Amino acid sequence: MGKHMTTAEAEALLAGLSKHIERYAELAIRRGINVQPGQEVVISAPIERADFVRLLVAKAYEAGAVHVTTLWTDDELSRLEYQNVSLSYFEQTPSWKREQLNSLAKAGAAFLFVTGSNPRALDGIDPAKPAMAMRARNEQCRDYRSGLDFGRNAWSIVGAPVEAWATTVFPECPSREALYRLWRAILLVARADGTDPQVEWERHDATFQKNKRILNGYAFDALRYRSSNGTDLKVGLCEGHIWEGGGARTVDGTAFFPNMPTEEVFTSPNRLRTSGVVHAVMPLVHAGRIVRDFWLRFDHGRVVDYGAKEGYDVLKSIVETDERSCFLGECALISKETPIRQTGLLFYNTLYDENASCHLALGTGFPECLEGGVTMSEEELLTHGVNQSHTHVDFMIGSDDLEITGITQSGEEVPVFVDGRWAWHVS
Amino acid sequence: MGKHMTTAEAEALLAGLSKHIERYAELAIRRGINVQPGQEVVISAPIERADFVRLLVAKAYEAGAVHVTTLWTDDELSRLEYQNVSLSYFEQTPSWKREQLNSLAKAGAAFLFVTGSNPRALDGIDPAKPAMAMRARNEQCRDYRSGLDFGRNAWSIVGAPVEAWATTVFPECPSREALYRLWRAILLVARADGTDPQVEWERHDATFQKNKRILNGYAFDALRYRSSNGTDLKVGLCEGHIWEGGGARTVDGTAFFPNMPTEEVFTSPNRLRTSGVVHAVMPLVHAGRIVRDFWLRFDHGRVVDYGAKEGYDVLKSIVETDERSCFLGECALISKETPIRQTGLLFYNTLYDENASCHLALGTGFPECLEGGVTMSEEELLTHGVNQSHTHVDFMIGSDDLEITGITQSGEEVPVFVDGRWAWHVS
Repeated sequence: MGKHMTTAEAEALLAGLSKHIERYAELAIRRGINVQPGQEVVISAPIERADFVRLLVAKAYEAGAVHVTTLWTDDELSRLEYQNVSLSYFEQTPSWKREQLNSLAKAGAAFLFVTGSNPRALDGIDPAKPAMAMRARNEQCRDYRSGLDFGRNAWSIVGAPVEAWATTVFPECPSREALYRLWRAILLVARADGTDPQVEWERHDATFQKNKRILNGYAFDALRYRSSNGTDLKVGLCEGHIWEGGGARTVDGTAFFPNMPTEEVFTSPNRLRTSGVVHAVMPLVHAGRIVRDFWLRFDHGRVVDYGAKEGYDVLKSIVETDERSCFLGECALISKETPIRQTGLLFYNTLYDENASCHLALGTGFPECLEGGVTMSEEELLTHGVNQSHTHVDFMIGSDDLEITGITQSGEEVPVFVDGRWAWHVS
Repeated sequence: MGKHMTTAEAEALLAGLSKHIERYAELAIRRGINVQPGQEVVISAPIERADFVRLLVAKAYEAGAVHVTTLWTDDELSRLEYQNVSLSYFEQTPSWKREQLNSLAKAGAAFLFVTGSNPRALDGIDPAKPAMAMRARNEQCRDYRSGLDFGRNAWSIVGAPVEAWATTVFPECPSREALYRLWRAILLVARADGTDPQVEWERHDATFQKNKRILNGYAFDALRYRSSNGTDLKVGLCEGHIWEGGGARTVDGTAFFPNMPTEEVFTSPNRLRTSGVVHAVMPLVHAGRIVRDFWLRFDHGRVVDYGAKEGYDVLKSIVETDERSCFLGECALISKETPIRQTGLLFYNTLYDENASCHLALGTGFPECLEGGVTMSEEELLTHGVNQSHTHVDFMIGSDDLEITGITQSGEEVPVFVDGRWAWHVS
């Protein structure tokens, strides 16, 4: 890379992105959470990106929102909180926070999560604290959690840069240039760099529909993953599993995109039928800390061994979050030919990095990935093989030479991925 | 004023204030709300001043706070909310907001309010909406409201600049220079520009004690205000009234300063014994709008007529907020020789401007300004003459030639203010 921009040059380029950023805000409101007239809207976002949040809020009101509630986050305050507050405090989600999330969920709110934070914000913090806080929230904010999980509330995660994140992705750049570069990358991979992102997303969704039709047609019994990096894993699927991806719908039929960007076609595997070894191909950023060069060994679905060159304790806290966080809840298929992968960037943010590569997730599975699953109780889901946990953590396994073979009910083998891309070349 | 600073010069000067700003944060935490070990702390502040908030939060934890909750405000989002949300929505404070404020108050939290906003943030907004929202909050968040009003929770209001405010105070300056100048003014008038602001505040409080001792010793029946601007007003005081000012104490004895800066010695007058005319000497900034050149006429305590050259509808909404917002709840005495007055600045913010000048307030009075008042019910307070309302709005009447005469129970006349300053020259 050549000589760097001056701050003034970076500011001018940032200003030049304003139309694209405005269209991106509109995309998030209209397609991401698809705000309906009279609806409550909740936007969670970093205070550093208030400029973008104000756009989102204005667009939400234009779309007919009855009221918008903004939940602000700040890396530095999170760090101060985890540094100074005792672990036991995090066992309880404050009553007002429970009431906030539950009452808004019950009122039918759409939830937009703007992700943007310093990947190293919680370096050196005891990972048990954020894990406890997340677990408490998921356990104690039942109406909220089930509203999102069972399709009663539309929701979407979109990205927006903050400087500490941008300089992590572009460590060689001054902060304003890094911010500009990260904004540009975010717009590009969200297919929001053109003149009509909403039309782009219609096209994009059509590709998802085709991949899902093919996979659901095969109704595989299992997938076998093999790679030269040592991965040799068999993932058993549930009877009646459904491949999902792209757009989703609430139970009352409102279309929304849970992730923007999204490139993954995914299902929930049978929690008890995975065995073998899998090697991660990218670092895992979790709760402000990083796990690098790690692997997991499964037997009858359970993680029985694991290792990491860096962040072993973080990986341990993930695996041990609760009694079922050691089982898989998701397997997701993503071609290596996506805009995210093609940027060549490591985003240090799951929304992006999980969409760069085939991945698996430890923790809770998706009711919508099982026939009849959305009306099942947790116990019924478990009986059918869909894992239930208070956590869900993705990790990337899509090496460039990854081969995935589908094994049909009758034992026939069907190539699904060859050399890291769809065997039937639809995307 | 000469030529203006470059942005770089302004940034360098701002950086040069950092030690003072840190001491100011410590002053707010240690003297303002006087955080106790194990206490919950709540900080309300504009997102634009996150840098200052992070200092406050760190200082609160250093002082032993068990947990700090930050409530963020943003002028632009407030404006979008009032523009787009219907009036009836504001009749109810959301259940979670009630739970938030009430549960934290019941847990004994100290509340620090960082005031800093664009004085014109709500220009053109129907003032009934913010008035409704404020009334709903005060009515529906009882534990919170009474915790602050009856001395169960320590609280303090301190200022911190945002750019739109700074450029209103310094309209001739570029925004970063204006921000620097407003920070410097805020530090100066908060007596936080020296090396030991906490010692400065001990001295300052000693002056308050002396003024209060003299006033409480006289136990006046009434005060008469006269000025060449047309003011001719008699304010009847309550039997058993108490002059307060400077530091306060919670019911369990924790010292705190409700306002930083503060220059006022104040009491609650008898709500039914004010008559005559009073002219404001400074604009009134209320709910993001401005009232200029206004006057009020009282009879038997009630506002019976009023006029304003600008913002009449805002004044009307204040007077008509509820059935008792047309009575006085406060009269406050402030010498014209204070740092605030001497800056010569109009701050467009009540915390500062009310401390530049003798003032009165429409709306609720103070239980602590009546003997035995803090344990009285609302009805008892009303019976003793202390007004009770859902609002409290100060307006400035301290002209340079203001004369205030105290009338004793036996009819004797005692000079209290001569030419806008204390007749006994203690400050």
